Amino acid sequence: MEYIIGEFLGSLFLILFGGGVVANVVLSKSKGENGGWITITAGWAFAVMIGVFVASSSGSPQADINPAVTLAKYFLGVYDSLTYVISAALAQISGCFTGAILVWLTYLPHWKETQDQEAKLAVFCTAPAISHVPGNLISEIIGTVALIFGVGAIVTSGDFAAGMVPYLVGMLVWGIGLSLGGPTGYAINPARDLGPRLAHACLPVANKGSSQWHYAWIPVIGPVTGAAIAAGLWQNIL
Amino acid sequence: MEYIIGEFLGSLFLILFGGGVVANVVLSKSKGENGGWITITAGWAFAVMIGVFVASSSGSPQADINPAVTLAKYFLGVYDSLTYVISAALAQISGCFTGAILVWLTYLPHWKETQDQEAKLAVFCTAPAISHVPGNLISEIIGTVALIFGVGAIVTSGDFAAGMVPYLVGMLVWGIGLSLGGPTGYAINPARDLGPRLAHACLPVANKGSSQWHYAWIPVIGPVTGAAIAAGLWQNIL
Amino acid sequence: MEYIIGEFLGSLFLILFGGGVVANVVLSKSKGENGGWITITAGWAFAVMIGVFVASSSGSPQADINPAVTLAKYFLGVYDSLTYVISAALAQISGCFTGAILVWLTYLPHWKETQDQEAKLAVFCTAPAISHVPGNLISEIIGTVALIFGVGAIVTSGDFAAGMVPYLVGMLVWGIGLSLGGPTGYAINPARDLGPRLAHACLPVANKGSSQWHYAWIPVIGPVTGAAIAAGLWQNIL
Amino acid sequence: MEYIIGEFLGSLFLILFGGGVVANVVLSKSKGENGGWITITAGWAFAVMIGVFVASSSGSPQADINPAVTLAKYFLGVYDSLTYVISAALAQISGCFTGAILVWLTYLPHWKETQDQEAKLAVFCTAPAISHVPGNLISEIIGTVALIFGVGAIVTSGDFAAGMVPYLVGMLVWGIGLSLGGPTGYAINPARDLGPRLAHACLPVANKGSSQWHYAWIPVIGPVTGAAIAAGLWQNIL
Repeated sequence: MEYIIGEFLGSLFLILFGGGVVANVVLSKSKGENGGWITITAGWAFAVMIGVFVASSSGSPQADINPAVTLAKYFLGVYDSLTYVISAALAQISGCFTGAILVWLTYLPHWKETQDQEAKLAVFCTAPAISHVPGNLISEIIGTVALIFGVGAIVTSGDFAAGMVPYLVGMLVWGIGLSLGGPTGYAINPARDLGPRLAHACLPVANKGSSQWHYAWIPVIGPVTGAAIAAGLWQNIL
Repeated sequence: MEYIIGEFLGSLFLILFGGGVVANVVLSKSKGENGGWITITAGWAFAVMIGVFVASSSGSPQADINPAVTLAKYFLGVYDSLTYVISAALAQISGCFTGAILVWLTYLPHWKETQDQEAKLAVFCTAPAISHVPGNLISEIIGTVALIFGVGAIVTSGDFAAGMVPYLVGMLVWGIGLSLGGPTGYAINPARDLGPRLAHACLPVANKGSSQWHYAWIPVIGPVTGAAIAAGLWQNIL
Repeated sequence: MEYIIGEFLGSLFLILFGGGVVANVVLSKSKGENGGWITITAGWAFAVMIGVFVASSSGSPQADINPAVTLAKYFLGVYDSLTYVISAALAQISGCFTGAILVWLTYLPHWKETQDQEAKLAVFCTAPAISHVPGNLISEIIGTVALIFGVGAIVTSGDFAAGMVPYLVGMLVWGIGLSLGGPTGYAINPARDLGPRLAHACLPVANKGSSQWHYAWIPVIGPVTGAAIAAGLWQNIL
Repeated sequence: MEYIIGEFLGSLFLILFGGGVVANVVLSKSKGENGGWITITAGWAFAVMIGVFVASSSGSPQADINPAVTLAKYFLGVYDSLTYVISAALAQISGCFTGAILVWLTYLPHWKETQDQEAKLAVFCTAPAISHVPGNLISEIIGTVALIFGVGAIVTSGDFAAGMVPYLVGMLVWGIGLSLGGPTGYAINPARDLGPRLAHACLPVANKGSSQWHYAWIPVIGPVTGAAIAAGLWQNIL
């Protein structure tokens, strides 16, 4: 059961850093205000790096911190029970939920200074640049396939010391954010969106707006579909 | 024939990420809009890193993903048949063509929101900052020589684990973009320009402009010339 | 006693680079003026990397360069005497004090060109974006827990060559700055704030303002509390 | 005599990339125009990385590409003849001179489009933000000491694969640029300033201004003094 703690803590750090950088860039009076996309994507890159380091050092050597990754590995036979997938996903969602609470605490005085309700929601979860259901779904699917394929390529191609993998996966995610994150904000991870969206709904965020649950299915279904496609491609090609 | 799949997939990822970051920065309403040159060059750096990881893990340990690199290695005796060079180049061009289709799909709702037809073309292929045939050719030649010389220096000077090479080559290309990419947008790879330009011509991009075929020969002839010069210098000096 | 020199020199380099990047961004007529948060956090990342390299190569293999890290290791039994903690902390504070003098010298002609007295203080020490005692304390505590947990995860999870640890810790601190530095400027290190604040009070900085000692306890108590929490969590979870 | 070729080629690449990034940011109509200090310092970081890789793979395993570094090593007994120092310095200056010619060629159509004569000179060599002889000298001395001390710390503290050293030295120089480059543009290398300044004087740069030889002694004397101080400190402390 140690992997539960590892996936929980790794996901918590993922959102503490990932939600944190969005807060820094979009909340009023923050020192990183208006830092732009390079700042947000750099922050998420290090969020993934730290999340993977923490997960793997606290009980989950697989360090998925993403139900889509766990699912793809299940399809590929790395895990052999659906119980594992579901328990890991619950740990990941809980970790992301808890990480979002810590982001809210870290930026405590900034919420009531910020007028823009969509900016406040953006600290927690994703929203599309242009609302377009098929386009948004395709974007999340392609981003997730790129993530899973990229992680697989990094892990299988190298003979370097395994300790650099978390860094390289972070750099891969920097690339995904820079290149594929424009249309939907690259959830590419159902827990990353669902857990913090739930936190947004529950927390007493000063003058908050809607949690926009109508969009919440896309960053779940998109990455899950992407995981299935990536696993299928991986098995047939590699 | 496994190298065909590796070169195809690596080149596909190269353009998915490389074209993707340009789309993110130049298409209207994208989250990375107006991110600037640091964003574009960072995206291309990770594009190269991922492309090399994917190519080498899917059947092409050489992981050239660039006909100019393949050609330089042919001149240096790494490959001994012209059939290899041509088949690899076709795989590379096809991969780049397919990657450009995926970029178009990833940014599906953004094309008709974008008025600037040259911006839309820039997602696919390069254009000179100032149109100047000898100057543009020199720029592409010097950039390609720097690429091939730099890759050679990284590969031959180190005793580090080989798994860091894709990352270091990505950083080299970040440097080329920052330092030598100003005049022509650093194609330094005939497939990177030709494949996506063909995709631009074929795809139903909303309200697209000319594919500017009159310029297309420079990012082919420049890199090919650079490959020949780099191979010659390498053989005589090192 | 060699660790005294190592901690002193490492802390000196930490502030020479860390204070230096703030000077470059906020002082008038500097070449990096208005470089923004990405520039400041990148500079601090390399400051930590260099500080750790210098400390570990000049007598302190532990290379803490931060009393909060030293304290957390004491709580975890890495060090067994309080004398070590206090002597190391004094070396760290002295090193930060001396580093701040070197920053002042490096930017010598820029102080009288700069009107903004708070900008000049920011080169030396931290100030909150919004003054809010509990919020600022929470921010420093969470940042410090993330630092100590992150360093622990990096050090314990990897089988990579130990020589990359200073780089990875630098990247962790880049992440902390980007994600958690918005509210208070991430002191997360009592010596980093106290030593240079003392230097600001002592040095003949042209037309300087208040050293704002009323805030100085927060970047001391916050990180110390964070060190205790991190050590407790580490012992119970990992 | 192989080190002559290595130092020449490494220095050539140093300036091709280092001068190139300045050209990209300051010359009119370039794609990287107005990219700011983060772009310039990133470009120089990769310039150093590539320069070191090229030098060490083409005959100079020491890969100094900087007379101040060569001199410091001479003071420390790494080299035992002054002939070596002088011949290496001449190779380094010649390489920087040649690299500057290649930058001029890479940006060929952009020179006459650029009105600002000081911007054109900045592509070749450094100029102070505020003219202040003692302040500028101190800045160059401290920057050079930080460079030599930092390189020494990286090389001596690690047990990582030696192949990552050029990358880490590049990151160190990124840090120096971000943190210490504000007042003088961090020459920290006599050849880096002298060689390209000579090229500016010789080349038919369209509508060029003064080569400002009155300042040229500071980026020579500063780094040489810094080399002596760094060597002395290193010998006494480490």
